[in-house]
Amino acid sequence: MDIRINIERLKRDLEELGRIGRDDHGGVSRPSFSAADLEARGWLKKKIEEAGLCYRQDGAGNQFGRFECAGKTIMAGSHIDTVPNGGMFDGAAGVLAALEAARRIVEEKAPLTKALEIASFTDEEGNLVGDFLGSRAFMGLVDESAVRNGRTSFGVLFSDILKRTGFTAEGILGAHKDRPELEAYVELHIEQGPVLEDEGVSIGIVERIAGKHYRQCAYVGESGHSGTTPLELRHDAFLGLADFALRATQLVATKYYGSVLTVGKAALHPGSFSVIPGRADFTLEFRSSSPEAMAAIEKDVFALAEDIAATRGLTFISKLVDQTAPVTVAPRIVSLIAEECRSLGYPSMKMTSGAGHDAQIIAGACDSGMIFIPSPDGISHSPAERVDWGDLEKGANVLLRTLLRLAK
Amino acid sequence: MDIRINIERLKRDLEELGRIGRDDHGGVSRPSFSAADLEARGWLKKKIEEAGLCYRQDGAGNQFGRFECAGKTIMAGSHIDTVPNGGMFDGAAGVLAALEAARRIVEEKAPLTKALEIASFTDEEGNLVGDFLGSRAFMGLVDESAVRNGRTSFGVLFSDILKRTGFTAEGILGAHKDRPELEAYVELHIEQGPVLEDEGVSIGIVERIAGKHYRQCAYVGESGHSGTTPLELRHDAFLGLADFALRATQLVATKYYGSVLTVGKAALHPGSFSVIPGRADFTLEFRSSSPEAMAAIEKDVFALAEDIAATRGLTFISKLVDQTAPVTVAPRIVSLIAEECRSLGYPSMKMTSGAGHDAQIIAGACDSGMIFIPSPDGISHSPAERVDWGDLEKGANVLLRTLLRLAK
Repeated sequence: MDIRINIERLKRDLEELGRIGRDDHGGVSRPSFSAADLEARGWLKKKIEEAGLCYRQDGAGNQFGRFECAGKTIMAGSHIDTVPNGGMFDGAAGVLAALEAARRIVEEKAPLTKALEIASFTDEEGNLVGDFLGSRAFMGLVDESAVRNGRTSFGVLFSDILKRTGFTAEGILGAHKDRPELEAYVELHIEQGPVLEDEGVSIGIVERIAGKHYRQCAYVGESGHSGTTPLELRHDAFLGLADFALRATQLVATKYYGSVLTVGKAALHPGSFSVIPGRADFTLEFRSSSPEAMAAIEKDVFALAEDIAATRGLTFISKLVDQTAPVTVAPRIVSLIAEECRSLGYPSMKMTSGAGHDAQIIAGACDSGMIFIPSPDGISHSPAERVDWGDLEKGANVLLRTLLRLAK
Repeated sequence: MDIRINIERLKRDLEELGRIGRDDHGGVSRPSFSAADLEARGWLKKKIEEAGLCYRQDGAGNQFGRFECAGKTIMAGSHIDTVPNGGMFDGAAGVLAALEAARRIVEEKAPLTKALEIASFTDEEGNLVGDFLGSRAFMGLVDESAVRNGRTSFGVLFSDILKRTGFTAEGILGAHKDRPELEAYVELHIEQGPVLEDEGVSIGIVERIAGKHYRQCAYVGESGHSGTTPLELRHDAFLGLADFALRATQLVATKYYGSVLTVGKAALHPGSFSVIPGRADFTLEFRSSSPEAMAAIEKDVFALAEDIAATRGLTFISKLVDQTAPVTVAPRIVSLIAEECRSLGYPSMKMTSGAGHDAQIIAGACDSGMIFIPSPDGISHSPAERVDWGDLEKGANVLLRTLLRLAK
């Protein structure tokens, strides 16, 4: 069937949802389980019901709209939570494109042989207790201790948030029991990087999603008076960190081209201009789309960290905070999306997703693929995040046609 | 006259003063103009009066005890304020050794031909609006805008503190008008470093006091998603800082041996594990006892900072916060102290002070010298700060005899 999405309606939906949680800085602040998120959930429920889909919510707060049919389930979705002061497209574009696609399928009474379900996953952005809480709960992969005893990055007990919002640890830990038997999952998302725009291409077909390894690290040395401790007698924890950050970045850039390593946060203690840092706490994150590279980077980087510690008379400590494995998208999904792009006459390119996505978690249960649309100037997680509506129309049409092919 | 100080009385005084502002962490928290400092000021006033000295306080809160005589003034002193959670000797040892010396001179009715005055200077530790507020006010070197509009490092308006404590900006700015005509200033202080202990020597005779240059700096680059921005496209502000800190330290260590450079505090923005730092704020401090080296380090280090910015596509910005010039102690003071050590049979060594002291500020008005006693394990600015009472007795005796020689 040659049906297309209605971009005006999709645009209206995105603009309506984008007003929920609009903050004073011009962005959208809608972290999961915030008041704005609860309002957005109510809005989405109404939209799903209006579309003629059967609404349900699981114990983790994941929201679904189902078009029932015999056979396995074809799922499309993303998330509607945002980072604080984020944009209106990261996640929301994927959920509302899936809603629009399902709505058109319902409107056109397209004949399906498989169930179709759209999904909006809780806390993809990890504002609560780690990334992908909803899709991990959907897969039965949630860390029980984090759910029961964890604190958010703002220091709030997660159990208090659950109490306030009516969700429960048991509900989150049991959410996977409500998962239908999946055949495939497809997620449309903004690229969050500059590649598609640079290449002048509207559709990115994700072949690989990078894995992530995130640790909280520290070098511990000796603090001392900056005026009275000669350079050669110092054990300056910050210089250890500086040395490590430069050499680890260089190592990844030269030996593991395409992988990335980032030190995004650092704090020196005691943190005075006239005291040698006795301790430097920092975050270390590396990502790669190759499982072999992930393992090799981990080995190389921690050997380097220890080597620097030994040379500089410091101690290196680190604790794993989170990790996700790299995912290779099933070739049949990549081919199918590529065929639909060709048949629609949209230029497309195959690419790697450097960012993590729910699709990566759900890849453990079925073939899982992604459709990217360009992020102008590569911007996301920012009030300046935007899309070209023409690109979104193309992306949503590819999603619609891919779902039709999968569920036919 | 062969008179000596009474170490038991000096010890009692130090222990009494050390109980004022004793904090929960076992240290002394007595920043200038705090409640504890005001209590300590009352205690010191009483002690000065009991010693038979004429008490006065100037508009900056500097406290003095004067033994009047015709002729110029010979002054000895230090400070009784502390860093938060500091020790009981940094500063206090110098003030109370000077008090004990003056007290012995009064008791023995030693014949003087010059006035003798002991001094305790406000906020040497710079907890309010920059180091050496009291001695700078005494010299007429206070930054008027800092006094009128400045905020402390805790964000409190200095003018509010003045209002609460009964001091005034006018008083601070006019304090120098009450300065007597000085001939010499001598300050006993703990070394705050490991040298005297390492050498097994009780008395350090300071020949030079290092100057200090303290700047608030930043590298500004571009933030971005850590997963979607390839390493080669990044303008990571933290890597700029890391590169700078390593190379600037290396530069000073190799080209300006004996000088020091420290990055003691850093903050990355936005400061998330998954966002490339778009800005890295940091403190930069360097110290040298040579005016030529200070100027050359400044030139070299800022050329390096700009060079790194250009190479990495960053912007380097910096703002001078504070600086003090290196001071060479008048040779006649160094010789005089050395002679007194010899005549008392105390081993001594000439040395450089890496830390800054009030003596350095007062060097602008007269010959100004310092007597150091060992800091066990080099510790200061800590509850673990301590002295060997035998070393303190020796140091105070050298101070007493030096004052007698100067005022005779």
